[in-house]
Order: sequence, then C-alpha cells, then structure tokens
Amino acid sequence: MRAYLAGPEVFLPNAREILDRKIALARSFGFTPVSPGDLVVPETETKRERGLAISAINESLMLGSDLIIANLTPFRGVAADIGTAFELGFMCARGCPAFAFSNSTKSHFERVSRFYGDSIHLGDDGRYRGTDGMSLENFDMADNLMLDGGIDSRGGTIITREVEPDRLFLDLTAFEECLKVAAERLLRRAVSAG
Amino acid sequence: MRAYLAGPEVFLPNAREILDRKIALARSFGFTPVSPGDLVVPETETKRERGLAISAINESLMLGSDLIIANLTPFRGVAADIGTAFELGFMCARGCPAFAFSNSTKSHFERVSRFYGDSIHLGDDGRYRGTDGMSLENFDMADNLMLDGGIDSRGGTIITREVEPDRLFLDLTAFEECLKVAAERLLRRAVSAG
Repeated sequence: MRAYLAGPEVFLPNAREILDRKIALARSFGFTPVSPGDLVVPETETKRERGLAISAINESLMLGSDLIIANLTPFRGVAADIGTAFELGFMCARGCPAFAFSNSTKSHFERVSRFYGDSIHLGDDGRYRGTDGMSLENFDMADNLMLDGGIDSRGGTIITREVEPDRLFLDLTAFEECLKVAAERLLRRAVSAG
Repeated sequence: MRAYLAGPEVFLPNAREILDRKIALARSFGFTPVSPGDLVVPETETKRERGLAISAINESLMLGSDLIIANLTPFRGVAADIGTAFELGFMCARGCPAFAFSNSTKSHFERVSRFYGDSIHLGDDGRYRGTDGMSLENFDMADNLMLDGGIDSRGGTIITREVEPDRLFLDLTAFEECLKVAAERLLRRAVSAG
C-alpha cells in the first residue's frame, strides 16, 4: 500500500534528512512511502506558477496513494499545518484510510484556550467563547472536528506524544507508533485476505 | 448548483444571523446554498461523539454539494480556519469547482513573516526562513500553496479585500463578489449549455 506522508517537515532546514528518515521508517513497516517533494518541480516563470506546479505534483502524488499518514503537530499557532489539513481532507474524500500523529498531547480546546490567554468564558448558549466572542470546539479532540472526524470515520487514529520543544518536528517516535498501528490494521488485513 | 459555504462563521456569537445572510446572498446569485449546521445533530453520550456526529453531517452535506465557496480569512493566527482547509481539500478531491474569499489582502508570505516579528532571513538554499529555521512559502499566494493551487486548478479564484478589524468575519462584500464571479463562470455556462 502506498502511504502519502503529509506534514510540515518540508519546511525544516534539514527537510531532506527527516523526509528520508520517514520514508525509511514507512518502508520498514511494509508501506510504499510517497512523500511531498518526491518529484522534480519544472522550471516556471513566476513564483506563483512554481507554487501551482508544486500543488499539482502533490495532488498527483496523493491520487497515486492508498492512505495518508498526516503530521498534525501544531505548526505556527494553535492548529496543524494548513496544507496538511487540505491534504487530509483530500484523501478522506477519496475514501482512503487516514492516520495521524502529533507531538503534542494537548487537546484542541486546551490550545485555543491558551491562545486566548486562558480568558475564555461560558456563554449563555453553553459554549465556551474567547475574548473575541468566537466559540471554542470542546469535543475532546486533538484538532478541529473535521480532522479528527475524518480520521476516525475512515478507521484511523491519532497517536499523540509529548516531546522536547526543540524536537517538535524532529522526533519520529509518534510517527513510528502510528505506522505500527496502520500496518496492523491495514497490512495484516491485506495478508489475511490474500 | 448546490454551493457548500465553508468558513469559521460557525464560531461567531451571531453565527445563525451571518450564516442566514450568506445563505440569502448565495440564493440571490442563483446557487442553492448548503451550510454547515443546516442539519440537526443527534443526541450523543460524549462530547467526542458529538464532534464526530457534526463531522459526519458536514461530510454528507459536502457530498451533496456541487461546488465550495470557502472563507479563507485568517483565523486565530497566520492561516485560514483549519476545518475550512480540510473541507476545501475534500471538495477539490471530488473535482468540484472551488472558490474562496478572504477579508485580508496580505499574502501568506507577509503574514508568516509578521508571525516571526519580521525577523526572517534568506538561507543558503535561497529560501526565506523564520527564527526557528522553518522556511516560508514565497509564491505570491493568499495561503498555503495547496489551498491556492487547489482553487486555481479547478477554475476558481480567491477574492481578497481589506475590512475594518472588527468586521473581519462579518463583512460579506468579498463573499458577494466571489459569488458573482462563481455565478458568471458556472451558471452562465450552465445556461448557455441548456
């Protein structure tokens, strides 16, 4: 099974090294890894055209994949990397199994509460609201309900783990555990059906 | 055509009022609006089950829709609402036309640069990097390239506009302009084909 490895590791200074480690780990669990950046981006005239070309490549890589393993570690704020969220939705719509990991055990609710300096209040409608009046999702979930729900309804799970802050996007222990669970659920099934 | 109206307006104190205004505007341009929260959530035992039920409802609403109009106004940070990004990816995978609007004209690059206190530097590899070493996408785009790319490759566009800060999720001028463009591209075509 071809596993699309989504996540913000592409932005790391040592992106190639970490992506290669993820690729090797995915192989060791029996998956065929598909990683953003696997294909060469053609020359383009403008920056925007280059961005569009990378988008097209990543979409084609997803269309050739059978499942997604998404890194939902909070990135530059309260939520997962937004490009990864797009890709997770993309693969869910295709009906693919979806798995995820996060190097934070804090819930979405805890993180958004922290975003408001813990100054949230319970509104008349029974919803917690931030200082700007916007309500907080309070569903015991790792991230927004569309992400957790999309993964859950496709037989997947989210593995969470707390790591040293300077290892937030480098520690692959949760990723490895996620691969293990995915392999047990998907590859063992494939074997027993064969 | 049934238009799924994605966006973080569901979190507003006056969510129902704003969603109803969006629904009325979509109708006035000839679309059949489909809005998150249109269906009643069944009773559940746990908070998590409730979140999963809402996710399932929103996915079913998307499966019954022909296009998406996403509000990509930055929400609680540098990027669009992450649930909206998931939904945009979901509808793009289904091959649906995708349109978006944002009440911010700042580019993704400008916002992420601001996130780093404008302390970004040009790395040896030609990429701008933040204080944590993570690279910034620099593609003249409104948000992450998967979002801009997904919209562009499906014939859509992103309408951006600057509004008063306290009207960030209330001003529907950009949404209205987006509806106008979508109607010209999709409904006029439908008419001329009929």
